[in-house]
Amino acid sequence: MAQRTTGTMPRRVALRGAGAMAAGAVLGAGRAAAETGDAPPPWMTEQGGLVAPYGSPSAHERDVIRRVTTARKLPSIVSIKTPLQDLTGIITPNGLHHARCHAGVPAIDPERHRLLVHGLVERPVSFGMDDLVRFPSVSRLHFLECSGNTSLYKDSEIKPGLTVQDTHGQVSCAEWTGVRLADVLAEAGVKKQAQWVLAEGADAAAMTRSVPIAKALDDAILAYAQNGERLRPENGYPLRLLLPGYEGNANVKWLRRLKLGATPFQTREETARYTGLLADGTALQFNFVMEVKSVITFPSPGRGPKQPGFWEISGLAWSGNGRIARVEVSTDGGASWRDAALQEPVLAKCLTRFRLPWTWDGGPALLQSRATDATGEVQPTRTRLIAARGANFYYHYNGITTWRVASGGAVTLAA
Amino acid sequence: MAQRTTGTMPRRVALRGAGAMAAGAVLGAGRAAAETGDAPPPWMTEQGGLVAPYGSPSAHERDVIRRVTTARKLPSIVSIKTPLQDLTGIITPNGLHHARCHAGVPAIDPERHRLLVHGLVERPVSFGMDDLVRFPSVSRLHFLECSGNTSLYKDSEIKPGLTVQDTHGQVSCAEWTGVRLADVLAEAGVKKQAQWVLAEGADAAAMTRSVPIAKALDDAILAYAQNGERLRPENGYPLRLLLPGYEGNANVKWLRRLKLGATPFQTREETARYTGLLADGTALQFNFVMEVKSVITFPSPGRGPKQPGFWEISGLAWSGNGRIARVEVSTDGGASWRDAALQEPVLAKCLTRFRLPWTWDGGPALLQSRATDATGEVQPTRTRLIAARGANFYYHYNGITTWRVASGGAVTLAA
Repeated sequence: MAQRTTGTMPRRVALRGAGAMAAGAVLGAGRAAAETGDAPPPWMTEQGGLVAPYGSPSAHERDVIRRVTTARKLPSIVSIKTPLQDLTGIITPNGLHHARCHAGVPAIDPERHRLLVHGLVERPVSFGMDDLVRFPSVSRLHFLECSGNTSLYKDSEIKPGLTVQDTHGQVSCAEWTGVRLADVLAEAGVKKQAQWVLAEGADAAAMTRSVPIAKALDDAILAYAQNGERLRPENGYPLRLLLPGYEGNANVKWLRRLKLGATPFQTREETARYTGLLADGTALQFNFVMEVKSVITFPSPGRGPKQPGFWEISGLAWSGNGRIARVEVSTDGGASWRDAALQEPVLAKCLTRFRLPWTWDGGPALLQSRATDATGEVQPTRTRLIAARGANFYYHYNGITTWRVASGGAVTLAA
Repeated sequence: MAQRTTGTMPRRVALRGAGAMAAGAVLGAGRAAAETGDAPPPWMTEQGGLVAPYGSPSAHERDVIRRVTTARKLPSIVSIKTPLQDLTGIITPNGLHHARCHAGVPAIDPERHRLLVHGLVERPVSFGMDDLVRFPSVSRLHFLECSGNTSLYKDSEIKPGLTVQDTHGQVSCAEWTGVRLADVLAEAGVKKQAQWVLAEGADAAAMTRSVPIAKALDDAILAYAQNGERLRPENGYPLRLLLPGYEGNANVKWLRRLKLGATPFQTREETARYTGLLADGTALQFNFVMEVKSVITFPSPGRGPKQPGFWEISGLAWSGNGRIARVEVSTDGGASWRDAALQEPVLAKCLTRFRLPWTWDGGPALLQSRATDATGEVQPTRTRLIAARGANFYYHYNGITTWRVASGGAVTLAA
């Protein structure tokens, strides 16, 4: 592609400098106007604004924000949902990553933060952040989903005002960097009897979960960075557990302690909460993996097609069991299906963006997506999911979502 | 993994609520202290802070910022460099993406912004942003590098105070989403004679570059989003050209016009600037592709090893010609080399993170990385690069960088 030119080039390079460029600014707008025949827009007629050392979105994007919901009894019990209807691709920008905090966001000084590894180990060890970042590091793109995301088991939850941010906004995706948990545990020396690891957070809730040793030694990460920079405070700064594919709360944030034991620790978060109540009165416990799931983000409530004609149906699919193998889309409520295109790279335990061209005839439509993962698991219909689990189940909802498109283009959640 | 438990579970689920969790917060800190034998840190003894709808980094990360350099004659001529020494993985968070602005950042109203396609087309067309986002979309992870990044051709540029942010901070990487330029051009109908596309920005500099039609019809994107959200203002909001692998300035920001022509348009930015002045007085013009390159980000100036022992050498490699095939690292100034591990996914025209374990003996060391891309091109030494291009060349510097580690662990740029 490179071409050589000769002649006056060197002289011109020497003559033109910053001053010439400033004059060029006005000439540029004038030239542009002459070419297009209309007046240049106002932002071409004056020098532009400055740039902050740490940037922010355009003021025109001020409505692209997370929905922050706090508990009436205690405002630090908070749920923060990602605006999936406004996002593209698979990466969630850090400012819009979802979060769930049981006692607000602790203001941790990273210089004073420590991680203790004890219990069934050869030698208890305590690490500072400086120690942890010296370990060999690993970076991986993974989704993180709250176990309570999209809980639509009850018919009373099918409210027409809900957006995809309301129903699915507790899933996000980032490039996480940290240390393999297996490497850190090896420093302490895991005893043979150790089958479970208690992970404890340094928030006022002392959030604790038991993690099977097999997961800890497989792909678990002690993460200190997300999308290149250090973790955001609400996502666990300065250190969190990352258990790819596991329900969000098990990925303990503000991680301060790992205790190895022979049996699960039966913490409050795995007895009173985060269990799955079945119709026969028994409860599923340690049901960690977020199963295959998908949702259409466009069209979706508040983001309907504005006129008949071509629109691209787009959405996200994910599975805690591995890669997404297939996403099918229906525009007639499941009567017929077409395969959507999957955007590369398709990565294990990561969001996958899918897309399908659609010509909307202007009439009513029922939009659905159905994901299949590499293990062959297929996303169930809502009816099938409720039949299997009962309407008192709360967590791990992964049923097919139906968006009803009305003749005017308005979109609402349907059962 | 899921286990069933029976008995009191349903009752306990019913009894525990928000109030019980608030009480649990204090209990949690007490229990944690009893387990570890020390007093809980202060952030475990009180409820944590609230969360903003659009999040920010921890106050403890306030030094992780871009370096903003403005021209003395006009502050809107600005260069903004990414703090590579503080980042992990391959994604650059949007707040830290590098930028180069010739007339500051225009405050564009996306509702009023339009893209005109004209010149050698069947029918000139003008698009609003609403029109463009209706096209089929595509998302891709690509690096973006300023053509002037790392210009170290002159020995006088080898200053010991420089950090990797100073020398290499004009490269960043994001997941870009937009429309295939080929699809938009097809709407206008490209005439046979059209060989070049003029791209013009809507800033006061009316930044213009000529792009070969082959590139425009290959992998060029009209991007409107980066890392999931809409483009940041300094990165081209609401629309920019993305030419994967091409020098940054050709990826015209704030894109308002595409004119198709039979020959290059010989704009100011491709005659007076962004040409490569060779030793024989001729200049390389339309030298678009950013060649294979790499740099070690740890250790690097200001981020030296603090004591002898294990450290992980880590850095970034990229090539405008495709995927990175190999990165070798030397700790003895190029006398011997070892292969670094490449973090998956390794994607074409994208940053690739490489890592190599290193045991520092506490003595002087000369750290270098050498990348090879899938086309077989090998990153040259600085000496070889200068011999080929002459010391008056300015752009497209991709020579091997040498970090000198002194006995105390201080790191400086070496020739």
